[in-house]
Amino acid sequence: MTPQNCLNFSGGPGALPERVLQQAQEAMLCVPGMGLSVLGISHRSDWFASVVSELENNIRSLLKLPENYHILFLQGGATQQFSMVPMSLLHGKSFAAEYLHTGYWSGKALPEARREGPIRVLWSGEAEGFRRMPRDEELPFSPEAPYIHYVSNETVEGVQFQRVLGRDDVPRVCDMSSDFLSRPCEAERFALIYAHAQKNIGPAGVTVVLVRDDMLKDAPTELPSFLDYRSHASAHSNFNTPPVFAIYVVLLVTRWLLHEIGGLVQMDQLNRRKAELLYSVLDHSDNFYQGRAAVADRSLMNIAFNLATPALEEQFLAAALAAGFSGLAGHRAIGGIRASIYNAITLPAVEKLANFMDDFQRQQDT
Amino acid sequence: MTPQNCLNFSGGPGALPERVLQQAQEAMLCVPGMGLSVLGISHRSDWFASVVSELENNIRSLLKLPENYHILFLQGGATQQFSMVPMSLLHGKSFAAEYLHTGYWSGKALPEARREGPIRVLWSGEAEGFRRMPRDEELPFSPEAPYIHYVSNETVEGVQFQRVLGRDDVPRVCDMSSDFLSRPCEAERFALIYAHAQKNIGPAGVTVVLVRDDMLKDAPTELPSFLDYRSHASAHSNFNTPPVFAIYVVLLVTRWLLHEIGGLVQMDQLNRRKAELLYSVLDHSDNFYQGRAAVADRSLMNIAFNLATPALEEQFLAAALAAGFSGLAGHRAIGGIRASIYNAITLPAVEKLANFMDDFQRQQDT
Repeated sequence: MTPQNCLNFSGGPGALPERVLQQAQEAMLCVPGMGLSVLGISHRSDWFASVVSELENNIRSLLKLPENYHILFLQGGATQQFSMVPMSLLHGKSFAAEYLHTGYWSGKALPEARREGPIRVLWSGEAEGFRRMPRDEELPFSPEAPYIHYVSNETVEGVQFQRVLGRDDVPRVCDMSSDFLSRPCEAERFALIYAHAQKNIGPAGVTVVLVRDDMLKDAPTELPSFLDYRSHASAHSNFNTPPVFAIYVVLLVTRWLLHEIGGLVQMDQLNRRKAELLYSVLDHSDNFYQGRAAVADRSLMNIAFNLATPALEEQFLAAALAAGFSGLAGHRAIGGIRASIYNAITLPAVEKLANFMDDFQRQQDT
Repeated sequence: MTPQNCLNFSGGPGALPERVLQQAQEAMLCVPGMGLSVLGISHRSDWFASVVSELENNIRSLLKLPENYHILFLQGGATQQFSMVPMSLLHGKSFAAEYLHTGYWSGKALPEARREGPIRVLWSGEAEGFRRMPRDEELPFSPEAPYIHYVSNETVEGVQFQRVLGRDDVPRVCDMSSDFLSRPCEAERFALIYAHAQKNIGPAGVTVVLVRDDMLKDAPTELPSFLDYRSHASAHSNFNTPPVFAIYVVLLVTRWLLHEIGGLVQMDQLNRRKAELLYSVLDHSDNFYQGRAAVADRSLMNIAFNLATPALEEQFLAAALAAGFSGLAGHRAIGGIRASIYNAITLPAVEKLANFMDDFQRQQDT
């Protein structure tokens, strides 16, 4: 059996809704009403201005985001934001920005931030193998930090915060790359949120940034223009040629979220049911499947687990692939198995995977 | 009549070959042999490694590029390169890099370079409205410059260099965004070439950089990692999640260039015939169509011209659109008319436009 889009449990770039893929396919030759391929329409066209404007409205509506936030569509992924954030918000500051080190991706942000200014790693889960998130009493946030930075969901280790961190008098910056628009997120409690698209909301190649306008007023003036949020904000994400197709797909995904799913509350309910189904297989497997994350900090997006031996994990992956499932190998940094169940993965697909896992265990036990 | 892809004379993002659009369309639901949408395949997959590797080979073969050049696929467009180049090659230098100011885009590179180190504008065509390129005797290149920088084709004004500039003892850096892979370019005479994809080779969202390996050895070590060419070179363009789909389309275009067109010599011949056809309409129009560029510096990619009045230009654009042609409005910086005839525009399409222009003139004259 060949892999199927509907059974693509990849950690990212991840699956997209079938309806969105069909619309993207249609747009390759002809955007409805336009007569032209989406790949050949000018970013200065009225059509593209309306794409950006509808997409901004959709995100604002999904997140109930106030008007004093800019919504930007940039390139370079979260990696670029690891640098752009401190370039704008940390450069020249004397107090340290406070970073949490909760897994692979928040760790990647640290050296980039250190190049730009003083940071303090307030908590690190490294010694514990990033199997849990910190509790509030382990996080003595300082009122003087220019901002705090954390990653809401760690895709590699499968741990996720189920609450907003920090203090209301210190700007919160959050990398939501892997759970953005998967659930309501109290966006207005954050000063800056960034998320690359390739998990829940689109293809690789575009990054969404939500930034409260007061955060930009003190940014250094000598930044390269493409690294200055203000260039993109004042040009309405059309400062230089944006990734038109990737942005169009994100628009299609937000339409799907609004009109087919019904919004983020409904998306969250569905995502919870999907995650519960798989964690339940783990919990009832008599340790055949060993979840990595502490129960309280389990990710709703990435279910990371191990089997007894690497050889058995190989066998599991091969059997899964033969059954049409793909993308289940754990991240190369830690190995094991990882089922990523982003927005586009349907409940029936997760049920199929759960049944497959039960069957695989039964076959091993007999 | 609605606009047609084959009659899309947009300045960029521009038209792509029909065959490539069809293959991109197929890949939206299923990459041949993979079973998965191109939007949902991991950038760490064997498939993507083979895409990058075949694409590198194709570019190397098309340009006869020696092995001591890295071929990188980055994000951020030419705008990002305006900063990345001087960050790596100019920072901390005492002698000025020499820049040519030959039009809108080379002008955009200047302030970004000035932020990073000393530059000297060796020649500017601004006072003459960028209607011509400099002659060799107007370019007293210094042997001490860390590099020279120029734009091979100015898309806005429609002027293009038909020779390689500079001295062999000073590294040449060239923005070939709008004529890359449209003709042979003596790539091995350059130290660094960059080109965003959205003119001749793909959709917006990916930028090709060719850089000779000796250029990177003295780059500063404190660069943000995503702005350091070495990060991307050592990771084989998989340092952070690359724009998978855009890179795949560039691969499809290079296959088309190699296997359907036959290479860059053949592409260049075709492009010259297309340009000659349109310039011939201008030259035989008794000044009804007034070409912007000096004859010797006419672009083979962007034919920029004016009609007697803005009102007549509006009338021309409306009639063209009604006849199925799109993208003919000049760049917002200078107005007028611009026919961009990148690789994908066929000779029959250019013949249609030439006939349309003749007809339009005839109707006005009667």
